[in-house]
Amino acid sequence: MSAYVAPLKDMKFVLKELAGLELVAQLPGYADATPDTVDAILEEAGKFATGVLDPLNQSGDEEGSKWKDGAVTTPKGFKEAYRKYVEGGWNALPFGPDWGGQGLPKLVATAVEEILTSSNMSFSLCPLLTQGAIHALELCGSEALKKAYLGRMVEGTWTGTMNLTEPQAGSDLALVKTRAKRAGDHYLISGQKIFITYGEHDLAENIVHLVLARTPDAPEGVKGISLFVVPKFLVNADGTLGERNTARCASIEHKLGIHASPTAVMVYEDAIGYLVGEENKGLAYMFVMMNAARFSVGLEGVAIAERAFQRALAYAKERMQGRDLVEGAGTVPIIRHPDVRRMLMLMKSQTEAMRALAYVVAAAMDFSHKCENVEERKRHQAFVDLMIPVVKGWSTETGIEVASLGVQVHGGMGFIEETGAAQHLRDARITTIYEGTTGIQASDLVGRKIAREGGATAKALVAELKKLDGELSRSKNADIQAIRGPLTAGVAAVDEGVDYIVANAARDLKGVFAGAVPFLKLMGVVTGGWQMARAALAAEKALAAADADRGFLEAKIGTARFYADHVLVQAPGLKNTVVNGAAGVMALPDDQFLAA
Amino acid sequence: MSAYVAPLKDMKFVLKELAGLELVAQLPGYADATPDTVDAILEEAGKFATGVLDPLNQSGDEEGSKWKDGAVTTPKGFKEAYRKYVEGGWNALPFGPDWGGQGLPKLVATAVEEILTSSNMSFSLCPLLTQGAIHALELCGSEALKKAYLGRMVEGTWTGTMNLTEPQAGSDLALVKTRAKRAGDHYLISGQKIFITYGEHDLAENIVHLVLARTPDAPEGVKGISLFVVPKFLVNADGTLGERNTARCASIEHKLGIHASPTAVMVYEDAIGYLVGEENKGLAYMFVMMNAARFSVGLEGVAIAERAFQRALAYAKERMQGRDLVEGAGTVPIIRHPDVRRMLMLMKSQTEAMRALAYVVAAAMDFSHKCENVEERKRHQAFVDLMIPVVKGWSTETGIEVASLGVQVHGGMGFIEETGAAQHLRDARITTIYEGTTGIQASDLVGRKIAREGGATAKALVAELKKLDGELSRSKNADIQAIRGPLTAGVAAVDEGVDYIVANAARDLKGVFAGAVPFLKLMGVVTGGWQMARAALAAEKALAAADADRGFLEAKIGTARFYADHVLVQAPGLKNTVVNGAAGVMALPDDQFLAA
Repeated sequence: MSAYVAPLKDMKFVLKELAGLELVAQLPGYADATPDTVDAILEEAGKFATGVLDPLNQSGDEEGSKWKDGAVTTPKGFKEAYRKYVEGGWNALPFGPDWGGQGLPKLVATAVEEILTSSNMSFSLCPLLTQGAIHALELCGSEALKKAYLGRMVEGTWTGTMNLTEPQAGSDLALVKTRAKRAGDHYLISGQKIFITYGEHDLAENIVHLVLARTPDAPEGVKGISLFVVPKFLVNADGTLGERNTARCASIEHKLGIHASPTAVMVYEDAIGYLVGEENKGLAYMFVMMNAARFSVGLEGVAIAERAFQRALAYAKERMQGRDLVEGAGTVPIIRHPDVRRMLMLMKSQTEAMRALAYVVAAAMDFSHKCENVEERKRHQAFVDLMIPVVKGWSTETGIEVASLGVQVHGGMGFIEETGAAQHLRDARITTIYEGTTGIQASDLVGRKIAREGGATAKALVAELKKLDGELSRSKNADIQAIRGPLTAGVAAVDEGVDYIVANAARDLKGVFAGAVPFLKLMGVVTGGWQMARAALAAEKALAAADADRGFLEAKIGTARFYADHVLVQAPGLKNTVVNGAAGVMALPDDQFLAA
Repeated sequence: MSAYVAPLKDMKFVLKELAGLELVAQLPGYADATPDTVDAILEEAGKFATGVLDPLNQSGDEEGSKWKDGAVTTPKGFKEAYRKYVEGGWNALPFGPDWGGQGLPKLVATAVEEILTSSNMSFSLCPLLTQGAIHALELCGSEALKKAYLGRMVEGTWTGTMNLTEPQAGSDLALVKTRAKRAGDHYLISGQKIFITYGEHDLAENIVHLVLARTPDAPEGVKGISLFVVPKFLVNADGTLGERNTARCASIEHKLGIHASPTAVMVYEDAIGYLVGEENKGLAYMFVMMNAARFSVGLEGVAIAERAFQRALAYAKERMQGRDLVEGAGTVPIIRHPDVRRMLMLMKSQTEAMRALAYVVAAAMDFSHKCENVEERKRHQAFVDLMIPVVKGWSTETGIEVASLGVQVHGGMGFIEETGAAQHLRDARITTIYEGTTGIQASDLVGRKIAREGGATAKALVAELKKLDGELSRSKNADIQAIRGPLTAGVAAVDEGVDYIVANAARDLKGVFAGAVPFLKLMGVVTGGWQMARAALAAEKALAAADADRGFLEAKIGTARFYADHVLVQAPGLKNTVVNGAAGVMALPDDQFLAA
């Protein structure tokens, strides 16, 4: 059994060398985010994760959350862990001081979030949803609503949920049927919602449901959806808890993974709800906070990949089997076998690439909110908008691949649940689905983020990527030189892909969308390679210092080299699929998808 | 819920057009395998699978096999299904008439095996292991052993197991410690074996364990391993069952998938065993039947892929969500969305490519055993030896990918166990591990099958593949024309990969093995593309007939086109990894695989 240890060395390297923590700390309001403070926060987060959350991860999976008579009991230890989470102030970390938050940059909150998620993804989903609900209320709620709810939610003593999905309305929210009847200063909400993460549980005093519903005279489709706050317990004027609302949990799902995280079927029967913002603008409000939620799920991909890597690595160092291929004599730990090492490097290099990309995007979120210069803010926001579907889609697809490699490294033991490797694969499997499937992310990327603006932001990114080759060419390091070929080919592939999308979206939208996921993967693979190349250059520079951590820095360069030869090389093939693959996708008539 | 229906149309197309069933039926002893007989067998197998095995697949997964006091109870319905399986003569199908078999070609048995495995992989593992044990006894056992065991095993009233693995000896059988003491005409076996599929169960009257163990004076390592028959119940001279042997099941594993298939920890305490063949040749005997076992597991990849595809397809046709991207108005089944269609095509095209390749290899097994001409037999055997690790490694890796796509097509419902899609992913996940991991297959391919003979067989295959372009160039079909580019690039990639392996194996074995799995995938992707191109040509030809099944044949061409643009295009990138990827794999010293 391997305990999770936060990868602080790599995190700090990425924060400093790639994401620009020092520049972020110079933004208005972020002066507290000094290197020392950030180091201290990450150390503490690591201790909390290793000491409190990680030990509950496997037991929580085995036990699962349990439903009985409308109440949900989380696994043994979760209540105590959540209490410590709240007491430690972890929930308040990313929020502004108005409602009791610590006001730290998104960049720092991202590193902390990765740590908590790595150690216990099921647990981390409760804060993830609460934080999403806080964002929605902060941005769109009335002062009265904020005053009633935000203090307790930022603190974490009340948690939040997002109620979007209904049995007939998943990706397609136009089909939402839940009704909201006006009743004086509030509404009466009726309907059924499914897939509600932490829709019911025993961790907090109150649960604040954000619910999409239709008022009686609302237009059809997505333009007739409003957003409501529906608390589990009504809140009295003095802030104390009042009556139980008629929002109840009818059951929880039996899922492939994240067993400790209760996924509720919620039934609302004339439940008292309060309108958020204006009627019929519910979907727009949801979109406001969609970026944050999608980013968080992308980060789950990074977090699970890291956890799976650590477990596989520990096993590979300890499991004795076979001989060294060249040296012969004597049984060796399996990390000595080339294919095991290849798998570990595939796990390690992709995890580092995903982390680097996610943190760089997190920093861009900080710049987009806080830069003094409006143009700068817009530029960063455009980059964030372009990259969110990539971080979400690519990091989760890759997270599954890495978790599956983790099983493989364990051989037969990987298939045995007690080993723990399989749980990471089961947990990871939801990440490409919720908060918008990979297909939805890819449509967003190709349609809204590229085609709609004629590829301007994507082209600017390509120009930025092309510039890197000049820097790489000046390096004397052979591994860095070896990265250039695959990276140049990768950037050219993205460039061609963007051109194809821009040229064909109006003429052949289905054809373009048929290649949307391959294009999203192409973007992830290449922008991940961009960050690994930047990391290699930064490592080479840092190696010049007398007190350099040579082992770590040389490994960073070697890992970037591996990524180029094993991952970046896929880029031209993906581009070919984007550019030529439409015919094959749309060729068969529906009735020729015969199963037998 | 979708019921499994055997894909008879595609199976028959592959048998006839690609695998050469008519030529196989002309081999000595296979005259019964006429098209009509084979059709009738496949129809019956399909009915048995749909009517008996498929309905137990999900309930078997939920219930699982249970251990109590050394006995294992299989899930509800399994005993009755197994009785029907035996009564139907299904177990006897692939064996020679000497011991009561039906003597059908491997090619036909392969199609039947795919059907049974698709409908219930957990169930199918019992026959799979029994058939492996029968092969071992047929080839290596004494007449007395054959007489005592083979009749009942071929019939299926007794089942068989393979006992290789011990806690310290998985891929590395040199570390086997189980002991065999001589005691007159038999041996006393003592030791612990793990991961024994159907090591204990309630389906049959007796269980015949084949156990690897060491005699007291055996040399160390793999040269000191002998193979023994250790029956659960001793067999009297008259063939009736005698005393219970001291072979007991200590527990069964709690696994990610194949829950209905009991995976036993077996403890032997001076259990009575009988030597198979000669002492110290146990590993060689195991290798004799390794090809068959590995092929069968490769076929599990095909079978699970087909099952996952059928389930996803049914859902995609039925689930209403979103509007048509171009036509707008009205909610449509999700199969109308380009990305859903892309996923379904990725599932369908890869399943068909894997099936075609597996059946072609199965036919080559028949030719290798039965051709009159010795040189022909050798040539076919060399092809089989080369391709077995490809069928095993590539079909299982791809089977997992297809099963995971099946979850994805279902969206949120895919993560809910009741839907059934997740089970296929869980079940499939073992297939890249047992009977030799993908890494082991790839080492076998690159080391024993290519480097050792200087690439002769692989080069002959490349020459065969290159010839196909001439045929493709004569086609008037635009989709077939479009296949040429990716296929030519793919074949060139294999060619370069083989050259690299042959040139570097002696000089840099670790470097070559570092690229072994990418090379195996390259071989799978390209030989799968070869079969899809052949299928497209055959379909084009068949379209000329007046009574042609136009829809099916046109879909076959469209599917081949899709495969070329979405799968074959990966070949050059994989080749780059094979040729350039070694440096990155071996760069880091062990101590720089730091988790934190």
